[in-house]
Amino acid sequence: MPHPIIFDTDPGVDDAQAIAIALRHPEIELLGLTTTYGNVDVETATRNALLLCQLAERTVPVAQGAAAPMVKPRHPAPAHIHGANGLGDIPLPAVSGSPEPRSAPQFIVDTVNARPGEITLVSVGPVGNLAAALQLDPQLVDKVKRVVVMGGSIREGGNVTPVAEANMFNDPHAAARVLTAGWPLTLVGLDVTHRCVLGPAHMARIAAGQGALGEVLAGSYAFYRDFYRDFLGIDGCCPHDSCALAWLLRPDLFTTAPGHLTVTTHGDAEGQTLFAPEGRAFIEPRWSRTPLVEVCLETDGPAVVEWIADTLG
Amino acid sequence: MPHPIIFDTDPGVDDAQAIAIALRHPEIELLGLTTTYGNVDVETATRNALLLCQLAERTVPVAQGAAAPMVKPRHPAPAHIHGANGLGDIPLPAVSGSPEPRSAPQFIVDTVNARPGEITLVSVGPVGNLAAALQLDPQLVDKVKRVVVMGGSIREGGNVTPVAEANMFNDPHAAARVLTAGWPLTLVGLDVTHRCVLGPAHMARIAAGQGALGEVLAGSYAFYRDFYRDFLGIDGCCPHDSCALAWLLRPDLFTTAPGHLTVTTHGDAEGQTLFAPEGRAFIEPRWSRTPLVEVCLETDGPAVVEWIADTLG
Repeated sequence: MPHPIIFDTDPGVDDAQAIAIALRHPEIELLGLTTTYGNVDVETATRNALLLCQLAERTVPVAQGAAAPMVKPRHPAPAHIHGANGLGDIPLPAVSGSPEPRSAPQFIVDTVNARPGEITLVSVGPVGNLAAALQLDPQLVDKVKRVVVMGGSIREGGNVTPVAEANMFNDPHAAARVLTAGWPLTLVGLDVTHRCVLGPAHMARIAAGQGALGEVLAGSYAFYRDFYRDFLGIDGCCPHDSCALAWLLRPDLFTTAPGHLTVTTHGDAEGQTLFAPEGRAFIEPRWSRTPLVEVCLETDGPAVVEWIADTLG
Repeated sequence: MPHPIIFDTDPGVDDAQAIAIALRHPEIELLGLTTTYGNVDVETATRNALLLCQLAERTVPVAQGAAAPMVKPRHPAPAHIHGANGLGDIPLPAVSGSPEPRSAPQFIVDTVNARPGEITLVSVGPVGNLAAALQLDPQLVDKVKRVVVMGGSIREGGNVTPVAEANMFNDPHAAARVLTAGWPLTLVGLDVTHRCVLGPAHMARIAAGQGALGEVLAGSYAFYRDFYRDFLGIDGCCPHDSCALAWLLRPDLFTTAPGHLTVTTHGDAEGQTLFAPEGRAFIEPRWSRTPLVEVCLETDGPAVVEWIADTLG
């Protein structure tokens, strides 16, 4: 039985690869893509989502959502990482399709309500669309099968601040809402995505296996790889967003722990995900009052990368 | 040439062991003990400091300092860890000595000014006395040789909150002042102290080597060990405070990194030490604006424990 999912995304180079997996993997039933600002502005995210479906010759609803954070001002998109066009500034074909008339939060609410208990929400950008969906229908917490969020960091440190991961930092208020909503949730953060480094040989397999879509994945990867080399000294890229799908389909490759998440919404630590493992007492109970969630703490990185290349190669 | 130090402390079981090292090690010239609330109230800390000197048959000035945090309310002392008397609730002999007439901050200011450039401040409790000394004499930053602070956590997580170490959490405002003052500073936090576990065999060597002082160290250790076993599932204790002196005398056993510290003073992450490694750019420059300090990130834990037992055995 394939997993019916809605994939919430801000493509984005690593998003593009994850979208390709969502489009190609036989165990995924992709009900729709919902888009948000983040790696790019939301209009660019929507254009890229439509383009990737077109290149894969798949018709999938694309619903546009959040253009900005819930509370804080929007940070500029990181054009030095993903390119101004979100796909490494390579030339892109024209897009023929058009997005859903419904907004992303409405699309999520409608789709989940049509199949209660069946759908997994996979979010790999700032989580504003999920927070907005909860605002429309708080009972979603009992109707989704699970929520998988690529974001956060427990012990790995952050990537945009010493302690905050980019998706959580981009909209900490939405993150606080979504990560403590009380729905079945798995956090796939830097503690595991940083263990996965996808190098040029794996990318060559993906390029060879994906035709026109593969050309865009490989071309944008080359730009993204320059960032990893120049800023982080790594030869290859961390496939952050693909890891969320890797967890969904291959949970055996991950070590998780149950516990309570708190998201810092202000001050120097804003966007940090504080994790209190289940049963561990701290000096005050406030960190352990949020609902239990599941957090990925370790993974077999090479096996995850191999799984990605096998899926797309 | 021995290191002239002032040892700022809230004894406390692991403080007691570190005080014993400061009293016994031939490469340390112990100019004075300054006391603070923390593991116990400050009067108990002072009584214990005087007692430990008495048991070691050493006359060392003991100056009493902070009875409470600078800004936030004081948390109750953790009697379940250190005992209500700070030394594992074992019966203790009467104390004959009495503290300095000067307060701890005044003692620090006077002593450092008498030997500019020579003295290392070693702090193993909440750092309020150091902050108060800077308030009296901001130029201390140019007059100390170095400041060594046992406290904080970079990637290890906290011990009293998911992200905060107890000394930093007890007085985050003092910590923010002290850790960003611009003096030469080394942070010895949970990232290294949690790698060191001192077991019963090592403690037996210490007990055998220290006479009447050893009886108190071993008796209080037994109580502290119960806490480690019952709450953390560890057979043995982390000699947090001794690690600060281990770094001072055996820096070769530690891996350090230069960078910028920020201390969160409010909200869920209060007391957290955010570390921005030197040269690593983040999305905003605010985390890298504080003066450079040195942070311990790794250690050879068994070698540190061996060094402690060799010093006191």
